[in-house]
Amino acid sequence: MENLTLEKFEEAASLVKNVTLPTKLEYSESLSSRTGGRIYLKPENMQYTGAYKVRGAYYKTATLSREQRERGLITASAGNHAQGVAYAAKKFNCRATIVMPTVTPLIKINRTKSYGAEIVLHGDVYDDAYEYAVKLAEEQGLTFIHPFDDLAVAAGQGTIAMEIVQELPTVDYILVPVGGGGLITGVSTLAKMLNPKIKVVGVEPANAASMTAALKNGGPVTLPSADTIADGTAVKRIGSKIFPYCKENIYKMLTVEDNQLIDAFLDMVENHKMIVENSGLLSVAALDQLDLKGKKAVAILSGGNMDVITMASVVQHGLIQKNRIFTVSVLLPDKAGELVKVASSIAGAGGNVIKLEHNQFVSINRNASVELRITMEAYGTQHKDSILKALREDGYDPEVVDTKLY
Amino acid sequence: MENLTLEKFEEAASLVKNVTLPTKLEYSESLSSRTGGRIYLKPENMQYTGAYKVRGAYYKTATLSREQRERGLITASAGNHAQGVAYAAKKFNCRATIVMPTVTPLIKINRTKSYGAEIVLHGDVYDDAYEYAVKLAEEQGLTFIHPFDDLAVAAGQGTIAMEIVQELPTVDYILVPVGGGGLITGVSTLAKMLNPKIKVVGVEPANAASMTAALKNGGPVTLPSADTIADGTAVKRIGSKIFPYCKENIYKMLTVEDNQLIDAFLDMVENHKMIVENSGLLSVAALDQLDLKGKKAVAILSGGNMDVITMASVVQHGLIQKNRIFTVSVLLPDKAGELVKVASSIAGAGGNVIKLEHNQFVSINRNASVELRITMEAYGTQHKDSILKALREDGYDPEVVDTKLY
Repeated sequence: MENLTLEKFEEAASLVKNVTLPTKLEYSESLSSRTGGRIYLKPENMQYTGAYKVRGAYYKTATLSREQRERGLITASAGNHAQGVAYAAKKFNCRATIVMPTVTPLIKINRTKSYGAEIVLHGDVYDDAYEYAVKLAEEQGLTFIHPFDDLAVAAGQGTIAMEIVQELPTVDYILVPVGGGGLITGVSTLAKMLNPKIKVVGVEPANAASMTAALKNGGPVTLPSADTIADGTAVKRIGSKIFPYCKENIYKMLTVEDNQLIDAFLDMVENHKMIVENSGLLSVAALDQLDLKGKKAVAILSGGNMDVITMASVVQHGLIQKNRIFTVSVLLPDKAGELVKVASSIAGAGGNVIKLEHNQFVSINRNASVELRITMEAYGTQHKDSILKALREDGYDPEVVDTKLY
Repeated sequence: MENLTLEKFEEAASLVKNVTLPTKLEYSESLSSRTGGRIYLKPENMQYTGAYKVRGAYYKTATLSREQRERGLITASAGNHAQGVAYAAKKFNCRATIVMPTVTPLIKINRTKSYGAEIVLHGDVYDDAYEYAVKLAEEQGLTFIHPFDDLAVAAGQGTIAMEIVQELPTVDYILVPVGGGGLITGVSTLAKMLNPKIKVVGVEPANAASMTAALKNGGPVTLPSADTIADGTAVKRIGSKIFPYCKENIYKMLTVEDNQLIDAFLDMVENHKMIVENSGLLSVAALDQLDLKGKKAVAILSGGNMDVITMASVVQHGLIQKNRIFTVSVLLPDKAGELVKVASSIAGAGGNVIKLEHNQFVSINRNASVELRITMEAYGTQHKDSILKALREDGYDPEVVDTKLY
């Protein structure tokens, strides 16, 4: 594909519709009241394969010649793009080879296999897997489907903008998670074609802001590292083929810290009943940085593929971060009845103990020789402070320490 | 209201539409392929207040006289009905008093307060709160909104059936979680009016099967206990006003064990990216008990209000239940290098260690005097067995013990 035209986007939208779920916009009461705007979520976490990637992979495959498809597809990915390509290949009834780093969790391997793809494990890190995939493509004449630096792939991802504007023609802002740049290329370019007044805002992890760096630099640059819990968007260098479109069509870039993603995860679970992976949360986590009073904004939730053990850990970090779980260390005299007293003090203040560690022999002072580490639930900072106050009033000297739940 | 007529349901559907989200059916690829049918989810967990209860509360309030509304509403509930009534009262701009047991988590109190309701904490258990609410209603002339044994409330809940049949007129089965019986009364009665071929199946927790007992007995009976993790449907006695409709219109009752709900929770999170509370999962957890080959079935997900600490605990139970987390105890000789050997054995079999406990002095036998408790992640039973086999082949005698993550 030589360039992104409205005709290409229309073709992509019409083709992609056949193999994707129509993820309808969800109006968020809580985010709207928090921002003063009308906030909608585009839940691509609920899309087939759990992410938007299937759109680009499918449309790209559709643009290939029959012969190219018959030779088979190949890509390198340990994440959502792997499943997208495997799913697209299945729909076209062609072969797909996915090169994944050897450390890829078996659950992701199995998911990708379940769509009929052949998995090749190679290399310790993504870059090695990528190079190996390029090599295999050349050797075996396979068609390489790049995860983001490909205009046909970007056109496929852009079909999200078509759906958003059809459903909400008066949208003012669209917020888009940005990794390598494929999604925002499609969304920003098509949105501007449909209505130049729509502002498309990209959001990156603060520690992997490769698009922000590229726009500043006037072209893609390689970041020294990309260290963030938003693993799906931890990309060191954005694509060069797509860059001109980003430069032209992105209204603004924002960045988000990991701890803001953790807050956003809790908000999604508690107030929206949805699982969204960390990368997919970039858009909602950045809402507070815009002045949205009286505006309509759509935050694209780009994916929901988070393994449950990570999820449990993010929940716990979130609770600790919001002072809804905390641990205090208190020193007690080594005599009968002391545990009752401290437990009563906490119970009286409404703290709910969830873990207790009792360490004898911490000092030879008989009046402060037992350390009790108490982990408890509270309802937030104010409640935590009132529990600490109650302990102090009862003669203890509680010290807040790091919470270790495992 | 004297009885449930199509006119009442039509009135309810038209009124309720103004204050509820149109929760669209979601087609489930994974549940469809598992059952051989076409399975759709009705996600009332995404409804305002996080549950369907707002429908019945709102319609009931709409049927009151202006004077009754002006005197104020009252109910007893620690759960979704509390929020439903508070939300309905806010929409009608009238007062609501909610009596909650004193043990109600502050987060539920705050949610209900956030809709403007007045909270009265009374009694250790629900029954005490209920009696106090009835007493307050009499003393202060407030209008009591019963959570389930009220035909207007049931008519409001039944509007779910109107939406399902509008969206999927050829539905064969509708599966409904059952607690006190209000939801299934509305759904089964209206579904039969709209199309007598639709089979409405009720699902109860095995340890709180009060509707099953009532249907068997020919009238409501009081269960000695209602002990289940599905707290929203842990009801000992169904309503007597609604019973005749249940007797007439329910096609069949099924029951589900708590461990099946835990499996269903993991499935919802991993394959559907949604948080559904335990009671809301009864319908999907029962799908396997029906022969759905070639049939269309809708499972109502009745609510999503689960606190995140419970959620993390359900996830862990689920992982342990599915052998995705397990703990072994191995005895090691007390000499250097043993930890390396056992760790290598596990790593070679692909086990991922998440917790390690090292207990010295468990015996005086120098060749088996250190106990190591290793908690690890696996991909399921087969993988667990292969890790155990690897340990045995390397000369250890692993014993699987209870996993304690906290």
